[in-house]
Amino acid sequence: MSPEEKLKELGITLSDAPKPLGSYVPCVQTGNLLFLSGMLPLKDGKLIRTGKLGESVSIKEAQEDARQCVINALSVLKSHLGNLDKIKRCVKLNGYVASAPDFTEQPKVLNAASDLLFEIFGEAGRHARAAVGVYVLPLNSPVEIDFIFETV
Amino acid sequence: MSPEEKLKELGITLSDAPKPLGSYVPCVQTGNLLFLSGMLPLKDGKLIRTGKLGESVSIKEAQEDARQCVINALSVLKSHLGNLDKIKRCVKLNGYVASAPDFTEQPKVLNAASDLLFEIFGEAGRHARAAVGVYVLPLNSPVEIDFIFETV
Amino acid sequence: MSPEEKLKELGITLSDAPKPLGSYVPCVQTGNLLFLSGMLPLKDGKLIRTGKLGESVSIKEAQEDARQCVINALSVLKSHLGNLDKIKRCVKLNGYVASAPDFTEQPKVLNAASDLLFEIFGEAGRHARAAVGVYVLPLNSPVEIDFIFETV
Repeated sequence: MSPEEKLKELGITLSDAPKPLGSYVPCVQTGNLLFLSGMLPLKDGKLIRTGKLGESVSIKEAQEDARQCVINALSVLKSHLGNLDKIKRCVKLNGYVASAPDFTEQPKVLNAASDLLFEIFGEAGRHARAAVGVYVLPLNSPVEIDFIFETV
Repeated sequence: MSPEEKLKELGITLSDAPKPLGSYVPCVQTGNLLFLSGMLPLKDGKLIRTGKLGESVSIKEAQEDARQCVINALSVLKSHLGNLDKIKRCVKLNGYVASAPDFTEQPKVLNAASDLLFEIFGEAGRHARAAVGVYVLPLNSPVEIDFIFETV
Repeated sequence: MSPEEKLKELGITLSDAPKPLGSYVPCVQTGNLLFLSGMLPLKDGKLIRTGKLGESVSIKEAQEDARQCVINALSVLKSHLGNLDKIKRCVKLNGYVASAPDFTEQPKVLNAASDLLFEIFGEAGRHARAAVGVYVLPLNSPVEIDFIFETV
Protein backbone atom coordinates (compact mmCIF):
# COMPACT_ATOMS: atom_id res chain seq x y z
CA MET A 1 0.00 0.00 0.00
CA SER A 2 1.37 3.43 -0.91
CA PRO A 3 1.70 6.17 1.71
CA GLU A 4 -1.17 8.04 0.06
CA GLU A 5 -3.41 4.95 0.22
CA LYS A 6 -2.36 4.30 3.80
CA LEU A 7 -3.34 7.84 4.78
CA LYS A 8 -6.75 7.30 3.23
CA GLU A 9 -7.14 4.04 5.16
CA LEU A 10 -6.22 5.81 8.40
CA GLY A 11 -8.81 8.51 7.64
CA ILE A 12 -6.17 11.23 7.57
CA THR A 13 -6.77 14.13 5.21
CA LEU A 14 -3.89 16.43 4.45
CA SER A 15 -4.86 20.06 4.39
CA ASP A 16 -2.90 23.06 3.23
CA ALA A 17 0.61 23.18 4.65
CA PRO A 18 0.67 25.41 7.75
CA LYS A 19 2.01 28.91 7.15
CA PRO A 20 5.40 29.69 8.72
CA LEU A 21 5.32 32.08 11.70
CA GLY A 22 7.91 34.32 10.07
CA SER A 23 10.23 34.88 7.19
CA TYR A 24 11.27 31.32 6.54
CA VAL A 25 9.89 28.45 4.48
CA PRO A 26 8.33 25.14 5.56
CA CYS A 27 10.81 22.99 3.63
CA VAL A 28 14.17 23.26 1.89
CA GLN A 29 15.51 20.55 -0.42
CA THR A 30 19.25 20.10 -0.84
CA GLY A 31 20.30 17.15 -2.95
CA ASN A 32 17.71 14.54 -2.02
CA LEU A 33 17.44 15.66 1.60
CA LEU A 34 14.42 17.63 2.71
CA PHE A 35 14.84 19.76 5.81
CA LEU A 36 11.49 20.71 7.33
CA SER A 37 10.83 23.57 9.69
CA GLY A 38 9.69 22.86 13.22
CA MET A 39 6.07 21.77 12.97
CA LEU A 40 3.57 22.81 15.62
CA PRO A 41 0.30 20.91 16.21
CA LEU A 42 -1.73 23.48 14.31
CA LYS A 43 -5.13 22.37 13.00
CA ASP A 44 -7.13 24.77 10.83
CA GLY A 45 -4.59 27.44 11.70
CA LYS A 46 -4.88 27.08 15.48
CA LEU A 47 -3.02 25.02 18.07
CA ILE A 48 -5.07 22.05 19.26
CA ARG A 49 -4.17 23.12 22.78
CA THR A 50 -1.55 25.06 24.73
CA GLY A 51 0.42 24.25 27.86
CA LYS A 52 3.05 21.89 29.22
CA LEU A 53 3.42 18.22 29.97
CA GLY A 54 3.37 17.51 33.67
CA GLU A 55 1.13 20.54 34.11
CA SER A 56 -2.06 21.09 32.14
CA VAL A 57 -1.43 18.71 29.24
CA SER A 58 -1.70 14.91 29.56
CA ILE A 59 0.52 12.41 27.75
CA LYS A 60 -2.47 11.24 25.74
CA GLU A 61 -3.27 14.79 24.63
CA ALA A 62 0.35 15.47 23.72
CA GLN A 63 0.43 12.26 21.68
CA GLU A 64 -2.45 13.67 19.63
CA ASP A 65 -0.37 16.85 19.24
CA ALA A 66 2.66 14.84 18.12
CA ARG A 67 0.53 13.08 15.49
CA GLN A 68 -0.72 16.44 14.25
CA CYS A 69 2.90 17.61 13.84
CA VAL A 70 3.47 14.58 11.58
CA ILE A 71 0.29 15.28 9.60
CA ASN A 72 1.42 18.88 9.10
CA ALA A 73 4.86 17.67 7.99
CA LEU A 74 3.21 15.39 5.45
CA SER A 75 1.11 18.31 4.20
CA VAL A 76 4.31 20.27 3.69
CA LEU A 77 5.95 17.34 1.90
CA LYS A 78 2.90 16.76 -0.31
CA SER A 79 2.84 20.42 -1.26
CA HIS A 80 6.59 20.33 -2.01
CA LEU A 81 6.80 16.97 -3.80
CA GLY A 82 3.31 16.68 -5.28
CA ASN A 83 3.08 13.09 -4.10
CA LEU A 84 4.17 11.33 -0.92
CA ASP A 85 5.26 8.31 -2.96
CA LYS A 86 8.39 10.30 -3.77
CA ILE A 87 9.56 9.91 -0.18
CA LYS A 88 12.29 7.33 0.15
CA ARG A 89 12.83 7.55 3.86
CA CYS A 90 12.20 9.48 7.03
CA VAL A 91 15.73 10.20 8.26
CA LYS A 92 15.60 12.18 11.49
CA LEU A 93 13.12 13.73 13.85
CA ASN A 94 13.89 16.20 16.64
CA GLY A 95 11.08 16.35 19.15
CA TYR A 96 10.75 19.22 21.60
CA VAL A 97 8.28 18.70 24.44
CA ALA A 98 7.32 21.63 26.68
CA SER A 99 7.80 20.06 30.09
CA ALA A 100 7.34 20.70 33.78
CA PRO A 101 10.64 20.20 35.68
CA ASP A 102 9.78 16.66 36.77
CA PHE A 103 8.30 15.41 33.49
CA THR A 104 10.69 12.89 31.96
CA GLU A 105 8.50 10.88 29.56
CA GLN A 106 9.24 12.87 26.42
CA PRO A 107 9.88 9.61 24.49
CA LYS A 108 6.34 8.38 25.25
CA VAL A 109 4.89 11.56 23.75
CA LEU A 110 7.04 11.33 20.64
CA ASN A 111 6.36 7.64 20.10
CA ALA A 112 2.96 8.71 18.77
CA ALA A 113 4.75 10.57 15.98
CA SER A 114 7.21 7.73 15.34
CA ASP A 115 4.44 5.12 15.32
CA LEU A 116 2.36 7.10 12.82
CA LEU A 117 5.34 7.44 10.47
CA PHE A 118 5.86 3.68 10.68
CA GLU A 119 2.16 3.03 10.03
CA ILE A 120 2.21 5.21 6.92
CA PHE A 121 5.63 4.42 5.43
CA GLY A 122 6.48 1.01 6.90
CA GLU A 123 10.22 0.38 7.27
CA ALA A 124 10.90 3.59 5.30
CA GLY A 125 9.23 5.43 8.16
CA ARG A 126 11.82 4.31 10.71
CA HIS A 127 13.99 7.24 11.68
CA ALA A 128 16.65 8.42 14.08
CA ARG A 129 15.24 10.63 16.82
CA ALA A 130 16.23 13.04 19.55
CA ALA A 131 13.75 13.91 22.30
CA VAL A 132 14.26 16.79 24.68
CA GLY A 133 12.14 18.55 27.23
CA VAL A 134 12.19 22.28 26.71
CA TYR A 135 11.01 25.17 28.80
CA VAL A 136 8.47 26.79 26.52
CA LEU A 137 7.59 26.61 22.83
CA PRO A 138 6.25 29.14 20.31
CA LEU A 139 2.58 30.06 20.94
CA ASN A 140 2.81 28.00 24.16
CA SER A 141 2.58 24.80 22.14
CA PRO A 142 3.07 21.52 24.06
CA VAL A 143 5.04 19.89 21.23
CA GLU A 144 7.22 20.89 18.28
CA ILE A 145 8.89 18.46 15.88
CA ASP A 146 11.27 19.08 13.02
CA PHE A 147 12.10 16.49 10.38
CA ILE A 148 14.62 15.40 7.78
CA PHE A 149 13.26 13.27 4.93
CA GLU A 150 14.97 11.74 1.91
CA THR A 151 13.38 11.71 -1.55
CA VAL A 152 13.85 9.14 -4.27
CA MET B 1 23.96 42.44 -6.02
CA SER B 2 26.27 39.83 -4.54
CA PRO B 3 26.06 38.89 -0.83
CA GLU B 4 29.39 40.65 -0.27
CA GLU B 5 28.12 43.84 -1.91
CA LYS B 6 24.86 43.60 0.00
CA LEU B 7 26.74 43.36 3.29
CA LYS B 8 28.66 46.50 2.38
CA GLU B 9 25.41 48.29 1.56
CA LEU B 10 23.96 47.26 4.91
CA GLY B 11 27.07 48.57 6.65
CA ILE B 12 27.91 45.14 8.07
CA THR B 13 31.59 44.34 8.49
CA LEU B 14 32.55 40.73 9.07
CA SER B 15 35.22 40.33 11.69
CA ASP B 16 37.24 37.28 12.59
CA ALA B 17 35.12 34.19 13.11
CA PRO B 18 34.36 33.76 16.84
CA LYS B 19 36.52 31.17 18.60
CA PRO B 20 34.74 27.98 19.69
CA LEU B 21 34.21 27.61 23.45
CA GLY B 22 35.86 24.20 23.42
CA SER B 23 37.40 21.45 21.40
CA TYR B 24 35.24 21.68 18.32
CA VAL B 25 35.32 23.70 15.10
CA PRO B 26 33.04 26.47 13.85
CA CYS B 27 32.15 24.70 10.61
CA VAL B 28 32.36 21.25 9.00
CA GLN B 29 31.78 20.67 5.31
CA THR B 30 30.49 17.32 4.08
CA GLY B 31 29.72 17.13 0.38
CA ASN B 32 28.33 20.58 -0.32
CA LEU B 33 26.63 20.93 3.04
CA LEU B 34 28.15 23.17 5.68
CA PHE B 35 27.20 22.43 9.27
CA LEU B 36 27.91 25.39 11.53
CA SER B 37 28.30 25.28 15.28
CA GLY B 38 25.81 27.08 17.49
CA MET B 39 26.56 30.78 17.14
CA LEU B 40 26.25 33.08 20.15
CA PRO B 41 25.78 36.87 19.79
CA LEU B 42 29.43 37.56 20.53
CA LYS B 43 30.84 40.91 19.39
CA ASP B 44 34.53 41.60 19.84
CA GLY B 45 34.73 38.42 21.89
CA LYS B 46 31.98 39.34 24.35
CA LEU B 47 28.23 38.71 24.46
CA ILE B 48 26.26 41.85 23.59
CA ARG B 49 24.17 41.11 26.68
CA THR B 50 23.15 38.26 28.97
CA GLY B 51 19.78 37.17 30.32
CA LYS B 52 16.43 35.76 29.22
CA LEU B 53 13.47 36.84 27.18
CA GLY B 54 10.47 37.64 29.31
CA GLU B 55 12.85 38.68 32.07
CA SER B 56 15.68 41.18 31.57
CA VAL B 57 15.96 41.04 27.77
CA SER B 58 13.44 42.70 25.43
CA ILE B 59 12.35 41.30 22.08
CA LYS B 60 14.04 44.20 20.33
CA GLU B 61 17.33 43.51 22.11
CA ALA B 62 17.13 39.81 21.34
CA GLN B 63 16.49 40.61 17.70
CA GLU B 64 19.80 42.48 17.68
CA ASP B 65 21.35 39.36 19.24
CA ALA B 66 19.81 37.12 16.58
CA ARG B 67 21.25 39.36 13.85
CA GLN B 68 24.66 39.14 15.49
CA CYS B 69 24.44 35.32 15.41
CA VAL B 70 23.90 35.57 11.64
CA ILE B 71 26.81 37.98 11.24
CA ASN B 72 29.03 35.58 13.18
CA ALA B 73 27.84 32.69 11.01
CA LEU B 74 28.74 34.70 7.90
CA SER B 75 32.19 35.41 9.37
CA VAL B 76 32.66 31.67 9.84
CA LEU B 77 31.49 30.98 6.28
CA LYS B 78 33.71 33.70 4.82
CA SER B 79 36.70 32.30 6.68
CA HIS B 80 35.87 28.76 5.47
CA LEU B 81 34.92 29.54 1.86
CA GLY B 82 36.97 32.65 1.18
CA ASN B 83 33.98 34.34 -0.42
CA LEU B 84 30.27 34.39 0.45
CA ASP B 85 29.38 34.19 -3.24
CA LYS B 86 30.13 30.48 -2.97
CA ILE B 87 26.99 30.02 -0.88
CA LYS B 88 24.18 28.46 -2.87
CA ARG B 89 21.55 28.42 -0.19
CA CYS B 90 20.78 28.73 3.49
CA VAL B 91 19.16 25.38 4.29
CA LYS B 92 18.21 25.25 7.96
CA LEU B 93 18.42 27.30 11.10
CA ASN B 94 17.79 26.08 14.64
CA GLY B 95 17.12 28.95 16.99
CA TYR B 96 17.33 28.56 20.75
CA VAL B 97 15.91 31.41 22.79
CA ALA B 98 16.55 31.57 26.56
CA SER B 99 13.02 32.15 27.82
CA ALA B 100 11.03 32.84 30.94
CA PRO B 101 8.25 30.26 31.40
CA ASP B 102 5.56 32.45 29.88
CA PHE B 103 7.54 33.84 26.95
CA THR B 104 6.19 32.33 23.73
CA GLU B 105 7.35 34.73 21.02
CA GLN B 106 10.52 32.92 20.04
CA PRO B 107 9.57 33.23 16.33
CA LYS B 108 9.50 37.02 16.59
CA VAL B 109 13.05 37.02 17.95
CA LEU B 110 14.32 34.70 15.24
CA ASN B 111 12.60 36.58 12.42
CA ALA B 112 15.38 39.15 12.77
CA ALA B 113 17.87 36.44 11.78
CA SER B 114 15.66 35.12 8.98
CA ASP B 115 15.00 38.60 7.62
CA LEU B 116 18.70 39.46 7.56
CA LEU B 117 19.51 36.27 5.64
CA PHE B 118 16.82 37.16 3.12
CA GLU B 119 18.15 40.73 2.82
CA ILE B 120 21.65 39.47 2.10
CA PHE B 121 21.00 36.40 -0.04
CA GLY B 122 17.54 37.04 -1.49
CA GLU B 123 15.58 33.87 -2.28
CA ALA B 124 18.73 31.82 -1.58
CA GLY B 125 18.49 33.08 1.99
CA ARG B 126 15.11 31.45 2.60
CA HIS B 127 15.53 28.52 4.95
CA ALA B 128 13.68 25.97 7.04
CA ARG B 129 13.67 26.86 10.72
CA ALA B 130 12.95 25.45 14.15
CA ALA B 131 12.46 27.80 17.10
CA VAL B 132 12.45 26.62 20.68
CA GLY B 133 12.53 28.31 24.05
CA VAL B 134 15.23 26.82 26.25
CA TYR B 135 16.02 27.19 29.90
CA VAL B 136 19.51 28.62 29.80
CA LEU B 137 22.25 28.98 27.21
CA PRO B 138 26.07 28.97 27.39
CA LEU B 139 27.48 32.12 29.06
CA ASN B 140 23.86 33.09 29.88
CA SER B 141 23.33 34.18 26.28
CA PRO B 142 19.76 35.16 25.32
CA VAL B 143 20.01 33.53 21.88
CA GLU B 144 21.92 30.76 20.11
CA ILE B 145 21.48 29.76 16.47
CA ASP B 146 23.01 26.94 14.48
CA PHE B 147 22.92 26.76 10.70
CA ILE B 148 23.17 24.47 7.70
CA PHE B 149 24.26 26.11 4.43
CA GLU B 150 24.81 24.66 0.96
CA THR B 151 27.73 25.68 -1.25
CA VAL B 152 27.83 25.80 -5.03
CA MET C 1 46.55 4.26 15.03
CA SER C 2 43.05 3.26 13.91
CA PRO C 3 39.98 4.30 15.92
CA GLU C 4 39.52 0.68 16.99
CA GLU C 5 43.12 0.48 18.25
CA LYS C 6 42.78 3.85 19.94
CA LEU C 7 39.68 2.63 21.81
CA LYS C 8 41.64 -0.38 23.01
CA GLU C 9 44.47 1.85 24.19
CA LEU C 10 41.98 4.03 26.09
CA GLY C 11 40.52 0.92 27.71
CA ILE C 12 37.09 1.55 26.22
CA THR C 13 35.00 -1.48 25.36
CA LEU C 14 31.99 -1.01 23.13
CA SER C 15 29.00 -2.97 24.28
CA ASP C 16 25.73 -3.61 22.50
CA ALA C 17 24.17 -0.48 21.08
CA PRO C 18 21.59 0.90 23.54
CA LYS C 19 17.99 0.08 22.67
CA PRO C 20 15.84 3.02 21.53
CA LEU C 21 13.17 4.17 24.02
CA GLY C 22 10.47 3.87 21.38
CA SER C 23 9.60 3.15 17.80
CA TYR C 24 12.63 4.64 16.14
CA VAL C 25 16.10 3.38 15.24
CA PRO C 26 19.52 4.32 16.62
CA CYS C 27 20.96 5.32 13.25
CA VAL C 28 19.81 6.15 9.72
CA GLN C 29 22.21 6.38 6.79
CA THR C 30 21.40 8.61 3.83
CA GLY C 31 24.12 8.88 1.22
CA ASN C 32 27.27 8.83 3.31
CA LEU C 33 25.74 10.74 6.21
CA LEU C 34 24.79 8.89 9.37
CA PHE C 35 22.17 10.53 11.55
CA LEU C 36 22.23 9.12 15.08
CA SER C 37 19.43 9.31 17.60
CA GLY C 38 19.89 11.26 20.80
CA MET C 39 22.22 9.19 22.97
CA LEU C 40 21.71 9.07 26.73
CA PRO C 41 24.50 8.09 29.15
CA LEU C 42 23.15 4.58 29.57
CA LYS C 43 25.56 1.93 30.84
CA ASP C 44 24.40 -1.68 31.04
CA GLY C 45 20.91 -0.44 30.27
CA LYS C 46 20.74 2.11 33.10
CA LEU C 47 21.57 5.81 33.34
CA ILE C 48 24.84 6.38 35.20
CA ARG C 49 22.96 9.01 37.21
CA THR C 50 19.93 11.30 37.04
CA GLY C 51 19.48 14.98 37.79
CA LYS C 52 20.52 18.42 36.59
CA LEU C 53 23.67 20.48 36.38
CA GLY C 54 23.73 23.26 38.91
CA GLU C 55 21.63 21.06 41.20
CA SER C 56 22.57 17.49 42.09
CA VAL C 57 25.03 16.75 39.28
CA SER C 58 28.57 18.17 39.17
CA ILE C 59 30.39 19.22 36.00
CA LYS C 60 32.84 16.37 36.49
CA GLU C 61 30.02 13.83 36.75
CA ALA C 62 28.29 15.25 33.69
CA GLN C 63 31.54 15.05 31.76
CA GLU C 64 31.58 11.31 32.49
CA ASP C 65 27.99 11.21 31.20
CA ALA C 66 28.95 13.08 28.03
CA ARG C 67 31.77 10.58 27.41
CA GLN C 68 29.30 7.72 27.86
CA CYS C 69 27.02 9.29 25.22
CA VAL C 70 29.98 9.18 22.82
CA ILE C 71 30.77 5.57 23.71
CA ASN C 72 27.13 4.65 23.06
CA ALA C 73 27.22 6.49 19.74
CA LEU C 74 30.33 4.52 18.77
CA SER C 75 28.56 1.28 19.74
CA VAL C 76 25.72 2.24 17.42
CA LEU C 77 28.15 3.10 14.62
CA LYS C 78 30.10 -0.13 15.10
CA SER C 79 26.90 -2.15 14.97
CA HIS C 80 25.80 -0.26 11.82
CA LEU C 81 29.12 -0.16 9.93
CA GLY C 82 30.85 -3.26 11.27
CA ASN C 83 34.05 -1.30 11.78
CA LEU C 84 34.78 2.21 13.04
CA ASP C 85 37.53 2.58 10.42
CA LYS C 86 34.72 3.27 7.94
CA ILE C 87 34.09 6.62 9.63
CA LYS C 88 35.46 9.49 7.60
CA ARG C 89 34.49 12.31 9.88
CA CYS C 90 32.40 13.41 12.83
CA VAL C 91 30.29 16.21 11.35
CA LYS C 92 27.99 17.65 14.01
CA LEU C 93 27.04 17.14 17.61
CA ASN C 94 24.04 18.65 19.38
CA GLY C 95 24.45 18.55 23.14
CA TYR C 96 21.53 19.01 25.50
CA VAL C 97 22.41 19.57 29.14
CA ALA C 98 19.68 19.46 31.81
CA SER C 99 20.41 22.68 33.66
CA ALA C 100 19.38 24.69 36.68
CA PRO C 101 18.39 28.25 35.69
CA ASP C 102 21.78 29.73 36.55
CA PHE C 103 23.99 27.00 35.10
CA THR C 104 25.72 28.35 31.99
CA GLU C 105 28.72 26.05 31.56
CA GLN C 106 27.15 23.64 29.08
CA PRO C 107 30.24 23.90 26.83
CA LYS C 108 32.49 22.63 29.64
CA VAL C 109 30.30 19.54 30.02
CA LEU C 110 30.27 18.83 26.30
CA ASN C 111 34.00 19.37 25.89
CA ALA C 112 34.42 15.92 27.45
CA ALA C 113 32.53 14.47 24.48
CA SER C 114 34.39 16.59 21.94
CA ASP C 115 37.77 15.76 23.48
CA LEU C 116 37.07 12.03 23.43
CA LEU C 117 36.11 12.17 19.75
CA PHE C 118 39.36 13.98 19.02
CA GLU C 119 41.36 11.44 21.05
CA ILE C 120 39.84 8.56 19.10
CA PHE C 121 39.61 9.97 15.58
CA GLY C 122 42.22 12.74 15.55
CA GLU C 123 41.44 15.58 13.14
CA ALA C 124 38.58 13.50 11.70
CA GLY C 125 36.98 13.75 15.13
CA ARG C 126 36.71 17.56 15.00
CA HIS C 127 33.08 18.53 14.57
CA ALA C 128 30.67 21.44 14.61
CA ARG C 129 28.69 21.64 17.82
CA ALA C 130 25.66 23.27 19.39
CA ALA C 131 25.27 23.28 23.18
CA VAL C 132 22.05 24.21 24.90
CA GLY C 133 20.76 23.99 28.43
CA VAL C 134 17.36 22.32 28.53
CA TYR C 135 14.79 21.97 31.23
CA VAL C 136 14.55 18.22 31.58
CA LEU C 137 15.61 15.19 29.56
CA PRO C 138 14.15 11.71 29.07
CA LEU C 139 14.48 9.50 32.18
CA ASN C 140 15.78 12.61 34.02
CA SER C 141 19.17 12.21 32.30
CA PRO C 142 21.69 15.02 32.88
CA VAL C 143 22.96 14.90 29.28
CA GLU C 144 21.77 13.88 25.82
CA ILE C 145 23.82 14.16 22.62
CA ASP C 146 22.88 13.48 19.02
CA PHE C 147 25.41 13.12 16.23
CA ILE C 148 25.96 13.30 12.50
CA PHE C 149 28.87 11.27 11.13
CA GLU C 150 30.17 10.81 7.60
CA THR C 151 31.33 7.44 6.26
CA VAL C 152 33.97 6.79 3.64
